[in-house]
Amino acid sequence: MILTVTLNAALDVTYDVDALVPHGSHRVRRVRERAGGKGVNVASVLHAMGHRVVATGLAGGGTGRQLRDDLRRRGIDHDFVAVAGESRRTVTVVDAASGDATIFNEPGPEVSGVEWRHALGVVEELVVRRRPAVVVLAGSLPRGLDGTAYGELVEAVRRRGARTVLDADGPTLLAAVAARPDVVKPNLAELLAATGCGDLASGAARLHELGAGTVVVSAGPDGVTAVSPTGATTTVRPPEALAGNPTGAGDAMVAALAAGLADGLGADDDWREVLADAVAWSAAAVLQPLAGAVDPDDVARLRARTS
Amino acid sequence: MILTVTLNAALDVTYDVDALVPHGSHRVRRVRERAGGKGVNVASVLHAMGHRVVATGLAGGGTGRQLRDDLRRRGIDHDFVAVAGESRRTVTVVDAASGDATIFNEPGPEVSGVEWRHALGVVEELVVRRRPAVVVLAGSLPRGLDGTAYGELVEAVRRRGARTVLDADGPTLLAAVAARPDVVKPNLAELLAATGCGDLASGAARLHELGAGTVVVSAGPDGVTAVSPTGATTTVRPPEALAGNPTGAGDAMVAALAAGLADGLGADDDWREVLADAVAWSAAAVLQPLAGAVDPDDVARLRARTS
Repeated sequence: MILTVTLNAALDVTYDVDALVPHGSHRVRRVRERAGGKGVNVASVLHAMGHRVVATGLAGGGTGRQLRDDLRRRGIDHDFVAVAGESRRTVTVVDAASGDATIFNEPGPEVSGVEWRHALGVVEELVVRRRPAVVVLAGSLPRGLDGTAYGELVEAVRRRGARTVLDADGPTLLAAVAARPDVVKPNLAELLAATGCGDLASGAARLHELGAGTVVVSAGPDGVTAVSPTGATTTVRPPEALAGNPTGAGDAMVAALAAGLADGLGADDDWREVLADAVAWSAAAVLQPLAGAVDPDDVARLRARTS
Repeated sequence: MILTVTLNAALDVTYDVDALVPHGSHRVRRVRERAGGKGVNVASVLHAMGHRVVATGLAGGGTGRQLRDDLRRRGIDHDFVAVAGESRRTVTVVDAASGDATIFNEPGPEVSGVEWRHALGVVEELVVRRRPAVVVLAGSLPRGLDGTAYGELVEAVRRRGARTVLDADGPTLLAAVAARPDVVKPNLAELLAATGCGDLASGAARLHELGAGTVVVSAGPDGVTAVSPTGATTTVRPPEALAGNPTGAGDAMVAALAAGLADGLGADDDWREVLADAVAWSAAAVLQPLAGAVDPDDVARLRARTS
């Protein structure tokens, strides 16, 4: 089983309008609402691919209730920790005239130290009770928390015998790798920005020095590269350039890596097969209009052409 | 006591952003959420002015819960009827760069015939149990309902011995006046558009023919005019032109009219005092950033200068 942790879970709301007119009044033609945030998207992809998964994280207020309701409707097992603040909504206004999106990201809750210590205990207890092989920690942090929160989670999970995949960026990534997560998955731009290095190899080496296990770096059409702690490097490229929605491609990739780890893949094993899965899952996500979705038929078709 | 009925209640959400960039991604600096819709705003103004009020209407889904939560926090007595659909949110994006607002109105729930018959019974039962002197019916209708819904409400309320103030426009207003509401309050543009008449007097006469009691017509800086069923006409003008937020000025005016009716004002009485209240409450609402609010000190100051 795989547990995903989303500390800054969101309700992703999409508004369809005829045309965006700044300072105008718009009739919204259709409202779509869906639980989101990177870890929730990872759980959603794993669920679509038939893996056993539980989604946890922090959720508060009316938006937190709607987020749980959506997961329940979609049959995704979940157990979120309540916080006092209101979970964030992300509103994407899709403009039929241009097809373009205008996005409004709410700030989300501020999490207190007391709430965080409680949440850490609840997640650790979930790991003991549900016995996941792998725990995925993914996405931004709510106000009040920094990368040490991810570090504390990585340590708690390891103490309970599970492995960790971390998807974070910037100072959050740098602070969290000290706790030695098994896999980290920045994209290339995030890796270079976080480490200040000029290329993938030196960026990955820097994360290894700081404590990271396998560093998996996605680079869009250039494919995905895994660098093991011993420096062994494996790259797999996508079978074709795909047009579509890149939002959520990284989450599908993290889902595939977590599935590989849950199947027992170790740092010193050959990562070619799991990277081919990661490329195929990610490419299948690009074909979907919303993040957190893949069609298993797309995955199978794309996987057959990836090696 | 005054009962307000809001059949298409909303959660009014305000997003503060630095600058609106079409097709850009925006960090929302502040989120404000407040129960809204015309009838809720009327209840909120009456509450601020120290009147006993109960807010009812239709509310559904997570947004309906947030709407009720907000009324509870603000101490406004309420008793909404649950519907299966999700109540609408109105998102107003306020752009610090220009101060202008860009508005997104969700469509709101579709109400079935079964739900409507149930709701009608619940509101009638509320009138029996809470004994309001006046019932205010205000605002747009959700999908699935038309002006006959307001007509049925007006008849049910009269059957139970209370009087009605109706704030509606267009075909909804025309269909509802046949049920003989005690007061209707279109603004001048709404009156002319609904009746197809060219001036206030003939528009008011048309609504009287169709069944309306006193027709009160607001015309912004030109003041407010009441035309009784016998044709007696009274006009009161505001003491000064006020800069501010005109949203909600009409709701404050309806609140003042309802308060006057609750104090026993009849169609054949002198409406000058209640119209002066209506002008002062409305002007005080213009000074507030959000609809549904007035400062009683502003009301007192403006009222002293209105006659």
